[in-house]
Amino acid sequence: MFEARLVNSSTFRKVLDAIKDLLNEASFDCSENGIQLQAMDSSHVSLVSLNLKSDGFDKFRCDRNLTMGMNLTSLGKVFKCSGADDTVTMKAQDYADTVTFMFESKKQDKISDYEMKLMNLDQEHLGIPDTEFSCIIKMPSIEFARIIRDLSQFGESIVISCTKEGVKFSAQGDIGTGNVKLAQTHNFDKEEESVTIDLQEPVALTFACQYLNSFTKATPLSNQVKLSMCENVPLVVEYQIPELGHLRFYLAPKIEEDEN
Amino acid sequence: MFEARLVNSSTFRKVLDAIKDLLNEASFDCSENGIQLQAMDSSHVSLVSLNLKSDGFDKFRCDRNLTMGMNLTSLGKVFKCSGADDTVTMKAQDYADTVTFMFESKKQDKISDYEMKLMNLDQEHLGIPDTEFSCIIKMPSIEFARIIRDLSQFGESIVISCTKEGVKFSAQGDIGTGNVKLAQTHNFDKEEESVTIDLQEPVALTFACQYLNSFTKATPLSNQVKLSMCENVPLVVEYQIPELGHLRFYLAPKIEEDEN
Amino acid sequence: MFEARLVNSSTFRKVLDAIKDLLNEASFDCSENGIQLQAMDSSHVSLVSLNLKSDGFDKFRCDRNLTMGMNLTSLGKVFKCSGADDTVTMKAQDYADTVTFMFESKKQDKISDYEMKLMNLDQEHLGIPDTEFSCIIKMPSIEFARIIRDLSQFGESIVISCTKEGVKFSAQGDIGTGNVKLAQTHNFDKEEESVTIDLQEPVALTFACQYLNSFTKATPLSNQVKLSMCENVPLVVEYQIPELGHLRFYLAPKIEEDEN
Repeated sequence: MFEARLVNSSTFRKVLDAIKDLLNEASFDCSENGIQLQAMDSSHVSLVSLNLKSDGFDKFRCDRNLTMGMNLTSLGKVFKCSGADDTVTMKAQDYADTVTFMFESKKQDKISDYEMKLMNLDQEHLGIPDTEFSCIIKMPSIEFARIIRDLSQFGESIVISCTKEGVKFSAQGDIGTGNVKLAQTHNFDKEEESVTIDLQEPVALTFACQYLNSFTKATPLSNQVKLSMCENVPLVVEYQIPELGHLRFYLAPKIEEDEN
Repeated sequence: MFEARLVNSSTFRKVLDAIKDLLNEASFDCSENGIQLQAMDSSHVSLVSLNLKSDGFDKFRCDRNLTMGMNLTSLGKVFKCSGADDTVTMKAQDYADTVTFMFESKKQDKISDYEMKLMNLDQEHLGIPDTEFSCIIKMPSIEFARIIRDLSQFGESIVISCTKEGVKFSAQGDIGTGNVKLAQTHNFDKEEESVTIDLQEPVALTFACQYLNSFTKATPLSNQVKLSMCENVPLVVEYQIPELGHLRFYLAPKIEEDEN
Repeated sequence: MFEARLVNSSTFRKVLDAIKDLLNEASFDCSENGIQLQAMDSSHVSLVSLNLKSDGFDKFRCDRNLTMGMNLTSLGKVFKCSGADDTVTMKAQDYADTVTFMFESKKQDKISDYEMKLMNLDQEHLGIPDTEFSCIIKMPSIEFARIIRDLSQFGESIVISCTKEGVKFSAQGDIGTGNVKLAQTHNFDKEEESVTIDLQEPVALTFACQYLNSFTKATPLSNQVKLSMCENVPLVVEYQIPELGHLRFYLAPKIEEDEN
């Protein structure tokens, strides 16, 4: 028997919105620790890693580890039926081939339940090695989304360069070139508006706009985003999910042609 | 001479928005009692019945019964030109082949008039027999629209089942199944949020989502919708138009295959 | 060296939005007096004339007259990257083949610069003769946009007729005919809501909807629009750009067929 209850169903809906651009289907691994998901995007370039801790749920019971393969388009349709203030309860029997989502309105006068078929998906668990990063940038997630969207108009790649002074995003293409520079600013009153840089050594890496743009679909989950960078190592873009866990995206840097 | 004046032109605009999905053209029957419209939708499955009482208008004069055939797309364009607070006056001469709509702004500093050609439409007046219904459900019109939209994602039909305890809407398809249950709740402070059930005997009938969805285009007309159901008789979906009349939609239940 | 600074970058963005419907590319002529642009639209029917005075800028320096040919789609992409409260600085070297736009946020913690390639465009300077107009109408720019949009549904042309009493806009087509009449009203408290008419003699002229609709893209620039009309002379549609200059559109009247 698996049962997980979340008073705020919209959190799970935002997680779905954040990953369904990259993944058509995915396996949710449930254990007494919580729910994990790890999968390459459908073009096998970036990696999505979701971790929801069991003690972040309002109720969590998992008698036996189980893996639930789901079509994320279908799951999106189910969560589209949830109200903004609904409570959601996920349930599955051991060895079941369906999962049930029950949504309850605040006043309990509307109860909806959706039973969805599970899928058998091939799984490849990828070990993600611990890395010492050259620099870790924390910045407002909305600002990150805006910059990536703006610079995507100019080229297919964005260079992220980080020094002690600040972080610079650059793109170039047929129209011309664009650079956006953010200074390190600590706003003690509004922590979520701060740009903070933890720097071991300066770094400048190039990434494909398309994937960075997909990652920013997670913006509604968190006020801040954390970018961890190191030469020859995938960028980690991390969004904290308040009280529940985190969603991370991994993307290998592009090898610049002029480096050949 | 026909002349009808409505201080709040937006009411008529909402009526139009509610029916132009189902009807391309329609005959408006004008008499001293008011304006009636009765027509099958263009695929001849559902029936639309509109009744606007003469004493609901701010001015109403109809010397001689007349039938005005109108293209509803054209009529929609005319009403798109009206301001939210405009007064509308409809006018037609006896035996005329045009109708005029005049819109006046609150401050009278803007006056628009639109003359539209009338059409000769075949008319078939359908007698609608009085029926004793097994159950009559009143519920918030927004909630009804939301449930129909949500469940339409799962299948082409929706089963509406009603018992003393409440009403259940169900759909199923490739993705899985969905059920939405509403309890009977009387909210004396907010009458318009109540779900009330007047039950003679329990009933469960199946309807095509497509038409139910079209009916919900009338949602802006009224806070509540009334569903009247009885075995082997068309469902009646009724929206009251405050102080002016009502708009009703009729839809025959589907014969379930497993009943053969 | 050319350098022009505008604390409110959104003004320039609105100018761009107003002209990029009509012009794919354009030459900006810079001199110590300011920035001028004059160009026929791409179908060579209407004329756009923009005048931004040097003393309306927060900083303006132009050592040597220069003409900067720009692709307006690319320029639109650059300005899409500006924040609502950003300051913009345009810079170009003498004889340069690029121009730079720098956007600075209010708090100076975000600085973006975009370098765009310039183009060589054929230029034809058209002399616009001074005209004595038969009538000059000032009216709310939003009302003008609304009327043009509404009547465009009915036909390809709009007749603008002006007498002492007011101004009338008319259109006709397959659906029927439409007339919108505005009375002259002076609102001393809300100057921007007034309709004022300065009339030498009554005039009625016909114009193509398509171009009038394009001109109304300038609506966000100004609360009022000024229409200057005279028989056999192009209509002038003028939007003041507060403290900075003006944007004018010229459109020749259609010769009515029934006048042949």
